[in-house]
Amino acid sequence: MTSPIPVAYFSVDDPVEPWRDLCRELALPVQLREWPAEIEDPAAIEAAFVWHAPPAMWTDLPNLRFVQTIGTGVDHLLAHPPPDSVTLARTVDPTLTEQMVEYAVLAVLACHRSLHHHLRNQRKGVWGPQPYAETAATPVGVMGTGEIGAAILQRLRAFQFPLRAWSRTGRTGIEGVNGFRGLDGLAAFLAETRILLSVLPATSATDGLLDGERLRQLPRGAHVINLGRGSTIVEADLEACLASGHLESCFLDVFAEEPLSPASPFWQHPQVIVTPHAAGVNFATPYAARLLAGNLERVLAGQPPRHGISPARGY
Amino acid sequence: MTSPIPVAYFSVDDPVEPWRDLCRELALPVQLREWPAEIEDPAAIEAAFVWHAPPAMWTDLPNLRFVQTIGTGVDHLLAHPPPDSVTLARTVDPTLTEQMVEYAVLAVLACHRSLHHHLRNQRKGVWGPQPYAETAATPVGVMGTGEIGAAILQRLRAFQFPLRAWSRTGRTGIEGVNGFRGLDGLAAFLAETRILLSVLPATSATDGLLDGERLRQLPRGAHVINLGRGSTIVEADLEACLASGHLESCFLDVFAEEPLSPASPFWQHPQVIVTPHAAGVNFATPYAARLLAGNLERVLAGQPPRHGISPARGY
Repeated sequence: MTSPIPVAYFSVDDPVEPWRDLCRELALPVQLREWPAEIEDPAAIEAAFVWHAPPAMWTDLPNLRFVQTIGTGVDHLLAHPPPDSVTLARTVDPTLTEQMVEYAVLAVLACHRSLHHHLRNQRKGVWGPQPYAETAATPVGVMGTGEIGAAILQRLRAFQFPLRAWSRTGRTGIEGVNGFRGLDGLAAFLAETRILLSVLPATSATDGLLDGERLRQLPRGAHVINLGRGSTIVEADLEACLASGHLESCFLDVFAEEPLSPASPFWQHPQVIVTPHAAGVNFATPYAARLLAGNLERVLAGQPPRHGISPARGY
Repeated sequence: MTSPIPVAYFSVDDPVEPWRDLCRELALPVQLREWPAEIEDPAAIEAAFVWHAPPAMWTDLPNLRFVQTIGTGVDHLLAHPPPDSVTLARTVDPTLTEQMVEYAVLAVLACHRSLHHHLRNQRKGVWGPQPYAETAATPVGVMGTGEIGAAILQRLRAFQFPLRAWSRTGRTGIEGVNGFRGLDGLAAFLAETRILLSVLPATSATDGLLDGERLRQLPRGAHVINLGRGSTIVEADLEACLASGHLESCFLDVFAEEPLSPASPFWQHPQVIVTPHAAGVNFATPYAARLLAGNLERVLAGQPPRHGISPARGY
């Protein structure tokens, strides 16, 4: 058996123990050590497994060659990246993707079936039926067609919503999904979307992408769901579009500032459902542990990792 | 062209015009006339299309041969039925079934992903992540395997929930769904179900079926969804099971009394989502109008209608 390779571990959210137990159970040649407490010889560490790692971690570990994120998002890593010589990868785990798909279907159906309206009536003690909008006349538009966006579109095909997708390339490869491409295709995409769902990552290209002008390109009465990153949507513009009646409701899981500021108008807004970045929850899975071990072996052997990150592209 | 057959129309909810327009557009040999205002010669009426018709309608129309309900539920019709000589049918419309499927998936995912918890935190302005329960370890049990229950189970197969079904016969005919049969199989079904979803009709066999003893056969922390009829669940027992912590949350669309009484504890209950019998909304569809016209032709020709109602069975 290969002798285990020490890997520095740091996460703002998740304890190391479940991951360590899993690596032991699966007999993976990986020895996770919490940074900084369990690192005796920083120069001996060539790899790290991290979530929201502070920049001090990179200066402390001079011989890093490989860093993998514990979850799918990488904005926190690229905001304070390790040196260019370090190879980066992210965890793309079917369990995490499935969680995102569940949450996306939940949010789309909640918007479609006027859940915000029923919840407001419930608080008032009012029995108030709502008109039904036919599903076949309610197009859903997904922004972002990576692993997660594509999986969401595939699952939504089981329902009768017309489906559209928007991405950098405009390619979806999914039957029955109309693809729209880049900034040139955005207005047409928005005009054809009644329920907008973003799973876009936080990059320089998505920062503030959905501002007031773009949100007003959605048809009147549209719904906005954000499960990607809060920076994609200009929150003050979103609020203004709800106030003007242009938007009917929002289902927001991510925000420009997290935790969401106590001063945010979204908390008590009757047309907004707020959840605490709960769509995809990282937890120790055999798939992710094996991905880490496999990538470590590949990178130390001079091969590219699976799900490598391109700092230039931003994901 | 066949000369149009006059059909008496009565609904507590739905105006006649959309149905009349549809029969005209589709050139169906059916002439809908609102009862009682538009019925000049009651003795000339052999058929009726109704939703929550009052018993006076039957005494007023002496020559009725056929009655079809506008929606899927028939409890209101059998509570005050026309004479035994009248043939009864209900509308089973794929549009209505699809609405029920959407609502069922919405409710199951809302329970699974702790939406009641997030909503309570939102009202308090609290950012409070929830632990994630793995989908593959969260069995969903559907009570009722008619057209609607079967369609719900089929759609849920796209997700990773283990699936169980309970019905009179125990047959599901759906791959991957464990079927449980009758009162003898109910305890085992409940013990294996974490998210319970009822689409059972209101019959003498389902009245009070889910009482405190049965609800306590669910595992601790279970969720209860009712999209069928309120009479299936003893509401005081459901409330007690929430108070004791045995149940984690409920998603209720139907109630023993509708509209739900202003005095109901469910309105302000932090673990209960209340919606106003909104899962399936009747509206004029070409499918249902054609079903009515086809059934009318069959019954007047002495043949049984499609989706006939058995008063003895209760649906």
